[in-house]
Amino acid sequence: MKEFSYHFSGKETRYYLDAGFADMPPVINRKGCIVITDTNLYQHYAPLLEGWQTIVIPAGEQYKQQSTIDDIIRRLIEMEADRTSFIIGMGGGVVTDIAGYVAGIYLRGVRFALMPTSILAMVDAAIGGKNGIDIGIYKNLVGLIRQPDFILYDYSLLDTLPAEEWVNGFAEVIKHACIKDATLFELLQSKDIAYFKTNKEALGALIERNIHIKSTVVAGDERESGERRLLNFGHTFGHAIENLYQLPHGHAVSIGMVIAAAISQEMTGFSAVSNESLVQLLQQYQLPVQFSFDKAKAFSILKMDKKREKEAMNFILLQSIGEGIVQSIPLTQMESIVMQRL
Amino acid sequence: MKEFSYHFSGKETRYYLDAGFADMPPVINRKGCIVITDTNLYQHYAPLLEGWQTIVIPAGEQYKQQSTIDDIIRRLIEMEADRTSFIIGMGGGVVTDIAGYVAGIYLRGVRFALMPTSILAMVDAAIGGKNGIDIGIYKNLVGLIRQPDFILYDYSLLDTLPAEEWVNGFAEVIKHACIKDATLFELLQSKDIAYFKTNKEALGALIERNIHIKSTVVAGDERESGERRLLNFGHTFGHAIENLYQLPHGHAVSIGMVIAAAISQEMTGFSAVSNESLVQLLQQYQLPVQFSFDKAKAFSILKMDKKREKEAMNFILLQSIGEGIVQSIPLTQMESIVMQRL
Repeated sequence: MKEFSYHFSGKETRYYLDAGFADMPPVINRKGCIVITDTNLYQHYAPLLEGWQTIVIPAGEQYKQQSTIDDIIRRLIEMEADRTSFIIGMGGGVVTDIAGYVAGIYLRGVRFALMPTSILAMVDAAIGGKNGIDIGIYKNLVGLIRQPDFILYDYSLLDTLPAEEWVNGFAEVIKHACIKDATLFELLQSKDIAYFKTNKEALGALIERNIHIKSTVVAGDERESGERRLLNFGHTFGHAIENLYQLPHGHAVSIGMVIAAAISQEMTGFSAVSNESLVQLLQQYQLPVQFSFDKAKAFSILKMDKKREKEAMNFILLQSIGEGIVQSIPLTQMESIVMQRL
Repeated sequence: MKEFSYHFSGKETRYYLDAGFADMPPVINRKGCIVITDTNLYQHYAPLLEGWQTIVIPAGEQYKQQSTIDDIIRRLIEMEADRTSFIIGMGGGVVTDIAGYVAGIYLRGVRFALMPTSILAMVDAAIGGKNGIDIGIYKNLVGLIRQPDFILYDYSLLDTLPAEEWVNGFAEVIKHACIKDATLFELLQSKDIAYFKTNKEALGALIERNIHIKSTVVAGDERESGERRLLNFGHTFGHAIENLYQLPHGHAVSIGMVIAAAISQEMTGFSAVSNESLVQLLQQYQLPVQFSFDKAKAFSILKMDKKREKEAMNFILLQSIGEGIVQSIPLTQMESIVMQRL
């Protein structure tokens, strides 16, 4: 097991890598703990959860809605959870988002930790304290930024991760490489999913590298007034089409990155060669690079993106591989890009 | 107009006393503002709100529920509210609680201010950043602690406050006197509601004195790990019976204070004379001092109070008039007090 911490606004979050349930820090007493997980994970890991109070929610992005929060709150009341209760979110990004949000609002906030079980949650969703739910088709429209006490990484839980979820997770890994880490980009070019699936040591190193990329960015800008915005690369268009067409998150982000890279070519001098490398890398990791969608509908959803500020949108572009930048683009220009160029 | 500030965990909240809509600080531009108010207030003050984007919610504690939050979020989406939007909660305690909560979760938090319109909201609910909603009969079970940018006091709005709401508000004024301010207790003994209703200057001074009592306590213990607990005097039993019998908040708190004072007599040496003074003062301000309720039901709700920690409850008692203390009472003892003594 490996341990380190990051400091966020007055709060230290501890990371336990290559750990397991048995490595829970002593602060956790099983009696006061409530594990939130989903039906998929419970099916595989019910024996592991024996003796823990558990709330099992239905699996899938379509349940990342208020009705699931209502159900969890009702269960917490039944369990007589109090201010000393400790919530553990064990699952992929939907579970970690929901568990963090419930922990933030129940009794005006109880302590919590996350145990990410997918590549996507391990390198992205569980890190940085953003949580929340979708409102209909609008992604993460309601939520909080609130850091967990710790994040515990048990790589053995990846053994049951479905193939398509490996693909999803690599969309965020490639995103990190694009905005911050050209060396990681090159490493990814020389490998593929099968390699990381079978080479545990390389996988552990990859996850750790991504943890550090995201945690460093967030620690420097927790409330997203500057650099944290870079992490939204591919997510503006991605979020606009994700729930509209019920796409897997990684697929939506992959398509969003291709669009953002194309716009970068026009606006920042991002080279055609780099653009081609990105498209190839996404394909190498089995991610989609094109998708036809209803442009008017997508733009109307995009307008509600949290990154909009009045009549402009903070959009993430690439200057080069490994160097993302934030550019404010007027909504009118955004609309003409969507309607004419795509 | 009078201005001052209190500092809460890294956040300064500005207070504008004896002010009006026209005194809104320049940070507020009408275009980016959304006023949340209720049907009662809108009926009286629609002309004042002309030109402001407004969300009007149904009036009453029974609407302090998730369904109202769902409606407000839907309206905010329709209005295309973004991260630069600024929410103003104009109303009594229900409106200020709801507006603060919505501002805390919409797009993971937008800025907000409060404009309390009842005595209760002016001296209590609008101060200290606690917000939230009830879950069925459980009071404030879900919410946040998050401070507003400013609180604006327009005393002229009290002109339309119904008589029973004046009574409600004085329950919290008397509470402040009991736990912190014996001189205020004596002042209250020498006056009555009719006096404060007709003497604007005395009313302004009374409200200001209560603002300082509450703000000072909260500034010293925002997360309620110590002294802030004192503000819950009368609220443990109060909350247990409030929604169960649909009592006005002030009535429930008044009955709760009488019960807590009786328990104080047994446990802290709070004198019979002081106890009698409190009961008399509550009656002088038209508040109820006894109420027969289903003890078993009340205890089962009381168990879910946010002040419970595992098998004990942090209960607020009086040592003397003007001096509250926190005492941890085991649930079993609490139950026998409820079942045998009351």
